[in-house]
Amino acid sequence: MKLDDLLHQTGEWLKCVGPNSEIVISSRMRLARNLKGVPFAHWSNKKESEKVFAMVKPAILESGLMKDALFLKIQDLSNIDKQFLLERHLVSRELITGSDSKAVAISPNEVISVMVNEEDHLRIQAMESGFNLKDAWEVINSLDDELSQKLDYAFSVDFGYLSACPTNTGTGLRASVMAHLPALVLTKQIEKVLHAISKIGLTARGFYGEGTEASGNFFQISNQVTLGLPELEVIDNLGRIIRQVIEHELSARQLLTSQQKELLHDRIWRSYGTLKSAYIITSKEAVELLSSVRLGVDLGMINGVDGKLLNELLVVIQPAHLQKLEAKALDAAQRDVKRADLIRQKLTSKD
Amino acid sequence: MKLDDLLHQTGEWLKCVGPNSEIVISSRMRLARNLKGVPFAHWSNKKESEKVFAMVKPAILESGLMKDALFLKIQDLSNIDKQFLLERHLVSRELITGSDSKAVAISPNEVISVMVNEEDHLRIQAMESGFNLKDAWEVINSLDDELSQKLDYAFSVDFGYLSACPTNTGTGLRASVMAHLPALVLTKQIEKVLHAISKIGLTARGFYGEGTEASGNFFQISNQVTLGLPELEVIDNLGRIIRQVIEHELSARQLLTSQQKELLHDRIWRSYGTLKSAYIITSKEAVELLSSVRLGVDLGMINGVDGKLLNELLVVIQPAHLQKLEAKALDAAQRDVKRADLIRQKLTSKD
Repeated sequence: MKLDDLLHQTGEWLKCVGPNSEIVISSRMRLARNLKGVPFAHWSNKKESEKVFAMVKPAILESGLMKDALFLKIQDLSNIDKQFLLERHLVSRELITGSDSKAVAISPNEVISVMVNEEDHLRIQAMESGFNLKDAWEVINSLDDELSQKLDYAFSVDFGYLSACPTNTGTGLRASVMAHLPALVLTKQIEKVLHAISKIGLTARGFYGEGTEASGNFFQISNQVTLGLPELEVIDNLGRIIRQVIEHELSARQLLTSQQKELLHDRIWRSYGTLKSAYIITSKEAVELLSSVRLGVDLGMINGVDGKLLNELLVVIQPAHLQKLEAKALDAAQRDVKRADLIRQKLTSKD
Repeated sequence: MKLDDLLHQTGEWLKCVGPNSEIVISSRMRLARNLKGVPFAHWSNKKESEKVFAMVKPAILESGLMKDALFLKIQDLSNIDKQFLLERHLVSRELITGSDSKAVAISPNEVISVMVNEEDHLRIQAMESGFNLKDAWEVINSLDDELSQKLDYAFSVDFGYLSACPTNTGTGLRASVMAHLPALVLTKQIEKVLHAISKIGLTARGFYGEGTEASGNFFQISNQVTLGLPELEVIDNLGRIIRQVIEHELSARQLLTSQQKELLHDRIWRSYGTLKSAYIITSKEAVELLSSVRLGVDLGMINGVDGKLLNELLVVIQPAHLQKLEAKALDAAQRDVKRADLIRQKLTSKD
C-alpha cells in the first residue's frame, strides 16, 4: 500500500453507515500513550526520539490489527502529502509540523492511525462511520492491548497513563463524534446546545479540527477530561449526551419541515443547483452548500445523492486533495476552479 | 380572437429576431393623436369621450392593418386582465386606471396596439423584435395614414399634431428601444452612458415601463422631445445613438471575456443553476438571473436556451400573467412559488 492509494479510496469513517449516520458522520477514539523511561517527546533529544521510533515501529507493524498498514516517516513526506494526511484526519497538525523520528501508521481502511512522537510517544486513533463509539472503542482497546504486550507504557497507579499534557493523563482517552446539526443552527438553538455541552465538560470544534470554527454546520464534540473516570464511563457519558443532541436536532428538523417547508425546500434545491453549476467555489461556500444538500437528502427532499458521496466531498475539496488529484501545485484561485469542477462532476454524474 | 388567447402566444416583439436582437430586445414607436373639435381626454366629459370612442372604433377596426384586431373596452376588464395587458406592454398605466370610454385595439401578433382616450384621444403603438426602428416606423406610419383618412386630427401648421401634454406636441412621436446592457453595468460604464444619453435629449427607463428602475440590466431608451424635428430625423438620431450604445456594450463584453472570463462563466452558470433549482423566487431576482443567462447565451457560454424563451419569461413571470396561468388570485408569496415553478419547467424542458 502506498500513500497515493488513499487518494482513490473512501476512508471507512466516511461511508455513511452505522447508527444515526444521517446526523453523526463519524465516531472517533484517541489514546495517548508514552514509553516508560524515555522523556516525553517535547523534552527528548534526537537519540531518544529515535529510540522511541525504533521500539514502536515493529510493535505497531507486528500487531494483528495493523497488518498491511501504511507506515510513513513524516520527514520523507512532501508538504502536500503532510497536508493531505491532515485533511483525511489521519495525522494532527502537531505531528506534521515537527521534525525527526515522527511517523504515522495507517490501517488500510483508515479506521486506525497511530502517530509516533507527536506530543506523546504514541497517539492511537480509531474512527468509525456513524454514531458508533462502541466499535471505535473496541478497535482502539484491542490495539492498545496488543501494543501494551510489546511496549512498556509509562503508568502510575495514582494517575493512570502518564502523558505530556495533564489534560491527557489518566485514561489518555479522548472520544468524539462529528455531528451535522443544520437544523439546530437554522433554528438558532445551537448556541444554547453548545453552551450546555461545555458546562458538562465537553467541547465542540469544527469539521477541520482543533482551532477551526464550525463550518457548514458540522461540529466535532468531544470529552475534555481524561482523568478520574474509567474509559467506559467517559464513552457512556459522551454517548448519552450525543443521543440528546441528536434528539434536539431531529426535533428542530421536524419544526423546520412543519413550519418552513417551502423555504427550506427552496434553500436546499438552490444549494444543490449552485453546486452543480458553479465554476468557481471557495471551500467555505462549498461546505455550507454540501451541508444544505445533506439536509435535503436526510429530509427526503433530494433523492439519488448518497451520503457517502457528500461525506467524501467534504474531504476531497480541501487544498492538498485537490492538488494531488490535479498532480500539481495550485494557488487559491486555481483550487476554487478545480474544487468547482470536481463537485460538478461528482454531483452531475449522479443525475 | 379573445384576450385569453394572448396568454398562450408570444408577442412578435419578443421573438428575438431582427437586427442585433442579442442586445436590442425590441424597437417601439408611439404616436399621439387627437381629434379636432373635441377637448383633450382629461378635459372631456363623458359624452365627449363617448363621441371619441364612437368615431375611432370603426376607423381602427376598418383599417387594413387592424384586421381581426382584438378590441377591448377597459371598463369591461377585470383588474387582472388590465394588469395583464400592461405587463405585455400593450396598454399604459394611465389607460387602465381611468374609467369610461377607454379602450385598446390590439393586432393579432401584438405588433400594433391603439389606445383610445388615454392622455390623448389616440395613442398608436408599434413594436418590432430586435433593433428595427424602420419597420416599426413603417407600420405605425401606414396605420396613421389609414386612420387620418377617416379621422380629423387636431393639427396646427405651427406646432404640428396637437397633444394633451406639450412634450408630445409636434410629431407626437416617441421612439424607443429596449436594450440589454449587462456588460456596461458589470464594467460600471452604464452611468456614464446614461448620462451622455440624457444630455442629448434621450431618456432611459426600466423594462417594466415609466417610473420603474432598470432591473436585470434592461434599459428602455427613448427620445424626449417630439417638437421641431421631422419623424425620420428623430428616428435616425435615436438609431445612431443606439448603434453607439451597442458598440459600447459589445466592447464591454469583449473586455469582460478577455479579462474576467472565468468569473463571468461562473456567474452565468450559477444564475442558470439557480433558475433551474429555485422553488421560491422574487420577480427582481428572476429578472437579474435571466439577464445573466441571456448574456451567457449571447457569449456562447450556454447552449440550447433560445433568446425567445428568455424574452418570453421576462413577461410571463409578472403577477397578472402568473395569476392568469394559474387561473386564480395569488398573493405575493404564492406568486414567488408559481414563478419559480414556471421558470424551472420552461428551462429544464430545454435540457
